[in-house]
Amino acid sequence: QGTRDHPPAHMTLRDRLFATVVACFKRHGAAAIDTPALELRETLMGKYGDDSKLIYELQDQGGELLALRYDLTVPFARYLAMNKITNIKRYHIAKVYRRDNPATTRGRYREFYQCDFDIAGQFDPMIPDAECLKIVHEILSELRLGDFLIKVNDRRILNGVFAICGVPESKFITACSTVDKLDKMSWEDVRSEMVGEKGLSPEAADRIGEYIQLHGGLDLIEQLLQDPKLSQNKLAKEGLGDMKLLFEYLTLFGITGKISFDLSLARGLDYYTGVIFEAVLVQQENNQVEEPVSVGSVAGGGRYDGLVGMFDPKGRKVPCVGVSIGIERIFSIMEQRVKASGEKIRTTETQVLVATPQKHLLGARLKLISELWDAGIKAEMLYKKDPKLLKQLQYCEDTGIPLVAIIGEQELTDGVVKLRVVTTREEVRI
Amino acid sequence: QGTRDHPPAHMTLRDRLFATVVACFKRHGAAAIDTPALELRETLMGKYGDDSKLIYELQDQGGELLALRYDLTVPFARYLAMNKITNIKRYHIAKVYRRDNPATTRGRYREFYQCDFDIAGQFDPMIPDAECLKIVHEILSELRLGDFLIKVNDRRILNGVFAICGVPESKFITACSTVDKLDKMSWEDVRSEMVGEKGLSPEAADRIGEYIQLHGGLDLIEQLLQDPKLSQNKLAKEGLGDMKLLFEYLTLFGITGKISFDLSLARGLDYYTGVIFEAVLVQQENNQVEEPVSVGSVAGGGRYDGLVGMFDPKGRKVPCVGVSIGIERIFSIMEQRVKASGEKIRTTETQVLVATPQKHLLGARLKLISELWDAGIKAEMLYKKDPKLLKQLQYCEDTGIPLVAIIGEQELTDGVVKLRVVTTREEVRI
Repeated sequence: QGTRDHPPAHMTLRDRLFATVVACFKRHGAAAIDTPALELRETLMGKYGDDSKLIYELQDQGGELLALRYDLTVPFARYLAMNKITNIKRYHIAKVYRRDNPATTRGRYREFYQCDFDIAGQFDPMIPDAECLKIVHEILSELRLGDFLIKVNDRRILNGVFAICGVPESKFITACSTVDKLDKMSWEDVRSEMVGEKGLSPEAADRIGEYIQLHGGLDLIEQLLQDPKLSQNKLAKEGLGDMKLLFEYLTLFGITGKISFDLSLARGLDYYTGVIFEAVLVQQENNQVEEPVSVGSVAGGGRYDGLVGMFDPKGRKVPCVGVSIGIERIFSIMEQRVKASGEKIRTTETQVLVATPQKHLLGARLKLISELWDAGIKAEMLYKKDPKLLKQLQYCEDTGIPLVAIIGEQELTDGVVKLRVVTTREEVRI
Repeated sequence: QGTRDHPPAHMTLRDRLFATVVACFKRHGAAAIDTPALELRETLMGKYGDDSKLIYELQDQGGELLALRYDLTVPFARYLAMNKITNIKRYHIAKVYRRDNPATTRGRYREFYQCDFDIAGQFDPMIPDAECLKIVHEILSELRLGDFLIKVNDRRILNGVFAICGVPESKFITACSTVDKLDKMSWEDVRSEMVGEKGLSPEAADRIGEYIQLHGGLDLIEQLLQDPKLSQNKLAKEGLGDMKLLFEYLTLFGITGKISFDLSLARGLDYYTGVIFEAVLVQQENNQVEEPVSVGSVAGGGRYDGLVGMFDPKGRKVPCVGVSIGIERIFSIMEQRVKASGEKIRTTETQVLVATPQKHLLGARLKLISELWDAGIKAEMLYKKDPKLLKQLQYCEDTGIPLVAIIGEQELTDGVVKLRVVTTREEVRI
């Protein structure tokens, strides 16, 4: 349940998608790594908040207690700490596992791919962070998924807002996870969760509400830097200062048009410590192409400066910032597009079919196809001793093979091959 | 235990290896598929003989009882039956899981990649089988792993041998698994296992011993076809007839020089029904390049005509033949080669580093690098506001970046970029 087989047509589309994403990651100088799908249970525990219950655990069959990885970020942090790596720019494309309620029509599965790009190391503020946003911008633009918006916030600003609204520090993380629901719930419902379940005062909730409904650009950052209360909070001030720097860099990249500083963005996971971001597709009303059903966020990420230290025996920190491309959701959209367009996807790359028009020529076909393979040419033949020529031509039409190399008795005598273009029926003897 | 992280240098080498293998599979017209790493436990049970105990089971957390796939063949058969596919040529490269005793120096892990190519469908005899052997020959030749030998046998011939030597049919499979150990154990030990553990008569064991020590080519096939006892056995006769046909096709492919018809080849798995094969590297005594430690078989496969039917509610059979490339063992060999050669593998593909020679030019770097990325050029910069030029050049030398695009105050004034070749220090203003 919640998993699926990928038939050839899926794989071809998926390979195209991966190729675009990997090309972007490589363009930004990233190296690839891989980690096992199995991790020690203790590595994963306590990193995902409430979602830890979604981790697949392996049966105790003797030896270590294992679980399937839930994301690629925690294994990455474990990898850095274990190998004492303090500086790397890497990408990782692999499957992760979550015992979630599958919603397969919206591209949510229990086994799915993540495509992560992360920059680890002690650097000057916001330069790697800005590059992560540039990467999201490049990938979403290249894939032509339609208009998109990248929401940006900073955990320090959010925590500052909580602090000046009277939320005790111990409740910052839980308040964050409630704010995170604003994209699915109305403010009224979020407010009542804050007051009811999370035990905040109604006044605190209302004050939070005023802040988190704000969104804008540099002007909003300037306005908040002037805010008499928020500017007094050390964390918020730091966050706002960095946000201003980030917007400066994004302006140089020429991408601020698609960026929104949005105080309601919270992100669910515990481990974020600074800038956070999430890209969503924007529905267009007068769109020529039929837009697919709402798919939510298509990329997300942020800064997590404390995670690597959790795996280091001496707690040595390695600051990290990274982005995860929501490849499954994007794949769902592209799949619907292909369906709607009626495009027939070729699942093989065969260039030529080796065919014979008469009987008793299997040997000639085997000899010729072997020569073609050895010359690096993608070639197929039917696995029949004496197939009919029509069947062989039909196979080309069905699978999109553009050329047929025909050897009959005449061609064998003359020492030639008849090469035929399937679509035009044009023939040459070579 | 028995798993590993793959750092960038591994991944680069692995990508090269996969590229060679995938290119060969595509050259033969195969399409890609993927299946989940998780399967229902019942799908895997009873397919792997004694090795079923090596299957990783997931904890029962409610819902279905799951296990991690043990190979790619059983999921492929399940996929064909579930989707009623009776005809496909596919490849599948993915990780499989075995709770085996790891022997990591010999490339044996608990999580490892398999690279499988299979042809499913009802075809004329031995044409797809011959193609599988051609594929093994192409891949091993292209990878230049040194001399190799592909051993070929047929389960029907083996079973015929057992029958005429007086082994009851109920003991064919278990006798097979003992014969399979001949590459690791002496004939004496294999014989005593047959007589002791497996309960065959000493006379039967001795008669089996005479047959399974035979190996050769077409001449041996002809000899056995004349064998008064074996030629009377229906199964063996069928198998020998097909083996003769196979050698005919392999002669047309020009690869019989590396093929040995070897009656001791048995293969461990239950599901084979016809031709079986295994490729091994052959140690050369006077080799110039130091040969790596013995790595055993580097490819194997065979025909399994009954497996798909086990997953079909009506038992409908789909004949299949396929090959699995032992990518991990090949990877171990290539890794040792690279180490021995001292080759430095670049793990990134960055073409140019954007650098500045003076302070306060971060903005200029961000602007230029953004233009390069948008033009599809692989570019990096240091994540420092004011890095020293020497550090920037050093980074190029360390990571193999061939070009530096330098923008200083003079270049900004003149509206040019200074492009420098790292190795020759040659510079042009553009």
